[in-house]
Amino acid sequence: MTTLSPLLIEETLRAALKEDLGHGHDITSAALISPEDEIRATLNAREDGVLAGLSIGLSAFIVMDGECDIEVHKSDGDKINKGGKLATIEGPARSILAAERVCLNFVSHLSGIATQTARYVDAVKGTKTQIADTRKTLPSLRAFQKYAVRCGGGINHRFGLDDAILIKDNHIAACGSISKALDKAKSYAGHMVKIEIEVDTIKQLDEVLNHGGADIIMLDNFTVEDLTKAVQKIHEKRPGTVIEASGGVTLKNVQTIAESGVDMISVGALTHSVISLDVGLDIDRN
Amino acid sequence: MTTLSPLLIEETLRAALKEDLGHGHDITSAALISPEDEIRATLNAREDGVLAGLSIGLSAFIVMDGECDIEVHKSDGDKINKGGKLATIEGPARSILAAERVCLNFVSHLSGIATQTARYVDAVKGTKTQIADTRKTLPSLRAFQKYAVRCGGGINHRFGLDDAILIKDNHIAACGSISKALDKAKSYAGHMVKIEIEVDTIKQLDEVLNHGGADIIMLDNFTVEDLTKAVQKIHEKRPGTVIEASGGVTLKNVQTIAESGVDMISVGALTHSVISLDVGLDIDRN
Amino acid sequence: MTTLSPLLIEETLRAALKEDLGHGHDITSAALISPEDEIRATLNAREDGVLAGLSIGLSAFIVMDGECDIEVHKSDGDKINKGGKLATIEGPARSILAAERVCLNFVSHLSGIATQTARYVDAVKGTKTQIADTRKTLPSLRAFQKYAVRCGGGINHRFGLDDAILIKDNHIAACGSISKALDKAKSYAGHMVKIEIEVDTIKQLDEVLNHGGADIIMLDNFTVEDLTKAVQKIHEKRPGTVIEASGGVTLKNVQTIAESGVDMISVGALTHSVISLDVGLDIDRN
Amino acid sequence: MTTLSPLLIEETLRAALKEDLGHGHDITSAALISPEDEIRATLNAREDGVLAGLSIGLSAFIVMDGECDIEVHKSDGDKINKGGKLATIEGPARSILAAERVCLNFVSHLSGIATQTARYVDAVKGTKTQIADTRKTLPSLRAFQKYAVRCGGGINHRFGLDDAILIKDNHIAACGSISKALDKAKSYAGHMVKIEIEVDTIKQLDEVLNHGGADIIMLDNFTVEDLTKAVQKIHEKRPGTVIEASGGVTLKNVQTIAESGVDMISVGALTHSVISLDVGLDIDRN
Amino acid sequence: MTTLSPLLIEETLRAALKEDLGHGHDITSAALISPEDEIRATLNAREDGVLAGLSIGLSAFIVMDGECDIEVHKSDGDKINKGGKLATIEGPARSILAAERVCLNFVSHLSGIATQTARYVDAVKGTKTQIADTRKTLPSLRAFQKYAVRCGGGINHRFGLDDAILIKDNHIAACGSISKALDKAKSYAGHMVKIEIEVDTIKQLDEVLNHGGADIIMLDNFTVEDLTKAVQKIHEKRPGTVIEASGGVTLKNVQTIAESGVDMISVGALTHSVISLDVGLDIDRN
Amino acid sequence: MTTLSPLLIEETLRAALKEDLGHGHDITSAALISPEDEIRATLNAREDGVLAGLSIGLSAFIVMDGECDIEVHKSDGDKINKGGKLATIEGPARSILAAERVCLNFVSHLSGIATQTARYVDAVKGTKTQIADTRKTLPSLRAFQKYAVRCGGGINHRFGLDDAILIKDNHIAACGSISKALDKAKSYAGHMVKIEIEVDTIKQLDEVLNHGGADIIMLDNFTVEDLTKAVQKIHEKRPGTVIEASGGVTLKNVQTIAESGVDMISVGALTHSVISLDVGLDIDRN
Repeated sequence: MTTLSPLLIEETLRAALKEDLGHGHDITSAALISPEDEIRATLNAREDGVLAGLSIGLSAFIVMDGECDIEVHKSDGDKINKGGKLATIEGPARSILAAERVCLNFVSHLSGIATQTARYVDAVKGTKTQIADTRKTLPSLRAFQKYAVRCGGGINHRFGLDDAILIKDNHIAACGSISKALDKAKSYAGHMVKIEIEVDTIKQLDEVLNHGGADIIMLDNFTVEDLTKAVQKIHEKRPGTVIEASGGVTLKNVQTIAESGVDMISVGALTHSVISLDVGLDIDRN
Repeated sequence: MTTLSPLLIEETLRAALKEDLGHGHDITSAALISPEDEIRATLNAREDGVLAGLSIGLSAFIVMDGECDIEVHKSDGDKINKGGKLATIEGPARSILAAERVCLNFVSHLSGIATQTARYVDAVKGTKTQIADTRKTLPSLRAFQKYAVRCGGGINHRFGLDDAILIKDNHIAACGSISKALDKAKSYAGHMVKIEIEVDTIKQLDEVLNHGGADIIMLDNFTVEDLTKAVQKIHEKRPGTVIEASGGVTLKNVQTIAESGVDMISVGALTHSVISLDVGLDIDRN
Repeated sequence: MTTLSPLLIEETLRAALKEDLGHGHDITSAALISPEDEIRATLNAREDGVLAGLSIGLSAFIVMDGECDIEVHKSDGDKINKGGKLATIEGPARSILAAERVCLNFVSHLSGIATQTARYVDAVKGTKTQIADTRKTLPSLRAFQKYAVRCGGGINHRFGLDDAILIKDNHIAACGSISKALDKAKSYAGHMVKIEIEVDTIKQLDEVLNHGGADIIMLDNFTVEDLTKAVQKIHEKRPGTVIEASGGVTLKNVQTIAESGVDMISVGALTHSVISLDVGLDIDRN
Repeated sequence: MTTLSPLLIEETLRAALKEDLGHGHDITSAALISPEDEIRATLNAREDGVLAGLSIGLSAFIVMDGECDIEVHKSDGDKINKGGKLATIEGPARSILAAERVCLNFVSHLSGIATQTARYVDAVKGTKTQIADTRKTLPSLRAFQKYAVRCGGGINHRFGLDDAILIKDNHIAACGSISKALDKAKSYAGHMVKIEIEVDTIKQLDEVLNHGGADIIMLDNFTVEDLTKAVQKIHEKRPGTVIEASGGVTLKNVQTIAESGVDMISVGALTHSVISLDVGLDIDRN
Repeated sequence: MTTLSPLLIEETLRAALKEDLGHGHDITSAALISPEDEIRATLNAREDGVLAGLSIGLSAFIVMDGECDIEVHKSDGDKINKGGKLATIEGPARSILAAERVCLNFVSHLSGIATQTARYVDAVKGTKTQIADTRKTLPSLRAFQKYAVRCGGGINHRFGLDDAILIKDNHIAACGSISKALDKAKSYAGHMVKIEIEVDTIKQLDEVLNHGGADIIMLDNFTVEDLTKAVQKIHEKRPGTVIEASGGVTLKNVQTIAESGVDMISVGALTHSVISLDVGLDIDRN
Repeated sequence: MTTLSPLLIEETLRAALKEDLGHGHDITSAALISPEDEIRATLNAREDGVLAGLSIGLSAFIVMDGECDIEVHKSDGDKINKGGKLATIEGPARSILAAERVCLNFVSHLSGIATQTARYVDAVKGTKTQIADTRKTLPSLRAFQKYAVRCGGGINHRFGLDDAILIKDNHIAACGSISKALDKAKSYAGHMVKIEIEVDTIKQLDEVLNHGGADIIMLDNFTVEDLTKAVQKIHEKRPGTVIEASGGVTLKNVQTIAESGVDMISVGALTHSVISLDVGLDIDRN
């Protein structure tokens, strides 16, 4: 059970199956498998990690063939171990073999994201800092990747250009100054829209703080010393502001960054550089 | 200039832009940028690597706004260096800033694939072995990922279930034996379709060789010793057969595998575990 | 020039033209108009009002036929008067006559929204209260209708279920209490998401205020007396909270509601009960 | 049970749900509602009127989630009273709350159309005149709006540019004269296509009648005196012709227009200026 | 220049090109043709016939690549002779070779229809009878096939289930009698909708004529004697009714059928059994 | 049970039904048939032939209305006789009558292809030659037409530009020579891709044979004498090569061509000039 729209899941799985079926003909199954053959298969983890996208991936079998029955043994967000059973699928052999790769591609990619996110979340355990994703996602998979980040214990940054204002250096340059940019943003934004501004230096931060602040301030590529200094300034002048650190974050330095007191650290690699988690489908023989 | 269908590129870019625009309103640009503002921006490499997807990513600007002018400084397949200029874009600021992230997501992902592929190709230099991809791709991006593999010097395995027969263990089990599976495949396949069979043991290989062979034989998860033995057997009994090694391939062991004499080595990680290559868009200020 | 995505505009106009063309054949134009005929036409206001959707509606001609030339005389958000020229279109007669109705349907509907919104905005002039829309929109036209509200001087409430949390009575009932609902919302929401809660009574309001408040509090169907009391309580206990009034708002009572001191008043009728503004296309004869 | 294609209904509801779900994530339900929660809800009228679109709107729940059960208490075309139960829905709370607004937006808009149409139909009761709609519909909702007109007792004018010929002033101008326009139309139209011509003056009417007439003659913006005169002329010279009045029709003058003896009166406001009928969804608590 | 919607043409050509390009990669062109190569090609008739779909087919080149230039030498509806030049195309070799087959498939199919239609039209020359198509068309090509029928001199029967009423035996059976069916049809149909009824016997015809007739009467599978008798009866009792003959029509018997005095003869084979007209693309070599 | 992707079938049937339903309203059924009426209908052959597309065509009823029950009496590939029952359909009368024409259009077209293919296959019985289709298919129906060819006993040539290399005269011209074309093709093609080359003369054939050959050689428009000579040459110099004859093949000359010893004969007319097989739907009356 995901928190994603079932319509989005169905449509995306349908597209993925169509991509794999090309001209609409799984030649291997058509040649070798009788249309009457039924099989039972198990989806198994082949590595330790955190599960994400199980029901999404399994939808491949249902979208392909309404006759497939599915039993689920784990839930998204669960820790899974090498060899652990994730789900059992029964149904027409042709349909299961045709949908197998699409299912695996989803589960292994999304679990790869959740597993990596969980590593970052673990690394900052003990601090109050949260781990967030970015818009550096793979085309047409953003909602799925961001869902996997949540499964791994992370939080989501904005979903698109439409749901929050994020003022970056190029916008500031276009407006002429930080003050003008903040004024324009506040006057345009509706009451349901949060405003974040990115600053690259303590000097820019001061300008923001002096000009009324923002809902969120992103400290981009700050040294740890500057981060600590910036956090103090913000707490003094604009308490209640959410503080985000970004830029050059790795599993090695994330704890140190968190200890600067920032509320959240955003990590592009969570979604732009994903190592898939190995899962496989084994046909029951008996 | 890619070898991908321009219709596919336009449609995919359109979908990616729509995903980022959500409810259709880039709030930040609408708030901060005047519709008349024009800018010039440069796409730059921030890391060394092999370029792929340049014109694909740049299509984001054109699909978003017909007014954008683009000059290209590098070609897909080129080696690029940190700081190198890839392209220059001129046009309405709103459109360029709105399409920026989509462009970068494509170029960095596809160049990440080409760069990693090139590392594998380099690692087997001096042998006659080729590096191939698999169907372990990210949903809806297969044609793009496989194109990037070509940019990196690799070759493409089949594109989908529809363009070649690949007999795997589950198909063999469903047919009862390797011989039956091969017979069925040969009788069904049209003359334009290649037939590949996967074997897990020397014993299975013998059965294939004794039963007429196949266009391609995939040696799955063989030790290097068994690979060498298998290559010899195939060369003796079925010269002309293409030999593919797969399973557990890494940059460390790929050369050793190649030296067994296989024709090609397929590497799932080329497309399922991609480390993106860092590229960025810098606005010209003057 | 709108702030809507050009991709969304093109896609929606294309759908509207296809709807009108049905089986793909404008029989009247095919029968009566020579393919070589060129005409010039003027889009005119036939009523006073506020313009919205001009370039959106005019896109109908361009999407239908790249040969159409368009000159625009007014901008969205402008006051327009009966008889005023809005735009001039030149091009193939067949294309202009075929796209005419679709253009008019967009401009008259969206200008109807902007005109009515402007009336509400005028009615609260002198107060600090803003007029907002709701999700009571017409299917598949939400982004366009909300754009028209902005043209009329209103602000936008959330765009969909995905861009903000709005806790209503049914959600509270499902959680057991206001406190539990607020806790769950705060723990789930990312840092980019605003949280609003709807209350129906002063008692519910107290519970919200005692439990940490929310970004926005919606006072639903309150009497003017209760509104005034509620505003005071919120200002005392949770200054900085945005206060929204909703329910039963009309042009007659909106000023009185505004004078209670609420920050914004949301009006479903802006988009669910739209009286179109009369515009027409006149062919130049000479 | 509607007379609309179930394929069209499903596709339109799917689009409306996707519009509301944006990036695919109903944050409020995800935060506050357990995936196991089941609820029962009642769709109630909050105003008197004529029902239209009940099963269309209810499809929102089924398209969203196959687990929803629905019982219908009224039929499209029924008179409904404030407080009357229209339908009962049972199923997963998350799905019902996520689809609620889309359902209500359809039922309230379409019932608004049916209710207004019924008022016009009542106003001409006792005459033989029928009330018809026009092509002044809201983009992508035409088939639904025209269905609602039928529910209210009205009849449908043509559905698009493709299913009948309607010669207007601009076509006549392009052809040079009414006679030429009629000749071209008759020679082009297949045997399944009706031909209507719009006239603005008695003089134009005479030209039509002298030149062989048409299946339908539309008297556009005629005074009541001229309408009466025109009806007599047509009955004398071209009995059997359907006579349509159009232009400036309101609930106040529609009876007088009908008494001129026209066969039908077309009213753009039925679909371009719709006041929605208030309906709401109440969750059963027990 | 066709009378088909340019939006429909573009969408259909796009789908056809995507079908041919499958996974998005024309391997042959990619392997053999340099992206810079430009060619000039001529579209030639390889048989005598009547042209249809020239600009439709040529759109394949434009949809594929905006750089293609096209010059047209013939028009739809023209008689063409073996060896005659139809059009010249210049542009990138890769694009022209990739779009060639789709262009040819359209032009040869549609010209096949026009050519066959023209043969039927010629066969009834001298009578007042027209040749019409049916709904026995190829899925997703109906608008195109019906356009080709017009190019060949035929007329179109209804385009779909939505634009006219055609009462067939199964409808009559469902209603209980011809009279009831006619009553229901007349009471339901709007004023823009024509009503046709199919009769299989003179007895059924009498029932129709006695019950008020219909706009069109279809005499299905009548002998020539019965046709003649039926035409007389209809002329006597219901002059002005359009009379259609259908069933078992061939080029051999169509003249005899026409001489019975029917207004039109519908021929399913025009669109369900099409012999394509041979056209080819020749590359200019010099 | 077909070997086509169920996703492709559903999508294509949905498009075909939408095409027939136009503005979404089957006026005849809406007027004459009660929504409660249930009927039983039989799909019958009205001619002898070979069946193809039965379950594809029957999907029309299921896609239109989930309430339809279907019993199948024949399988694709079966010989059927005039009057033979193919399937029985039970369900709502409105849905069955609305989907009837789409079902018939598919079954009659695809069975027409299978029947004609079977005639060619019969004509070469006794030889080892196979009958293949081409890419001369009808737009958007290729996968279906190629499936029907298989039902008739034929084999499929390539499905699109993406699944095999076919070097034609224009490609050779672009490369400069046959040798260069073959070199480029072999160096570009992955190991899963077959390479075919078309030759028009014995001289060209010699060049191919001397330059390493290809997987398949197509002898285009050769005389029977030249065919025989070519087959001998290929068997001598490049045994194992698949030999294809094409060009000007008819039912009269196909046996003679086959006797030249070619492996396969490709026939464009199988799919570009299809005579539909007559099938009909009869409503059970009782």
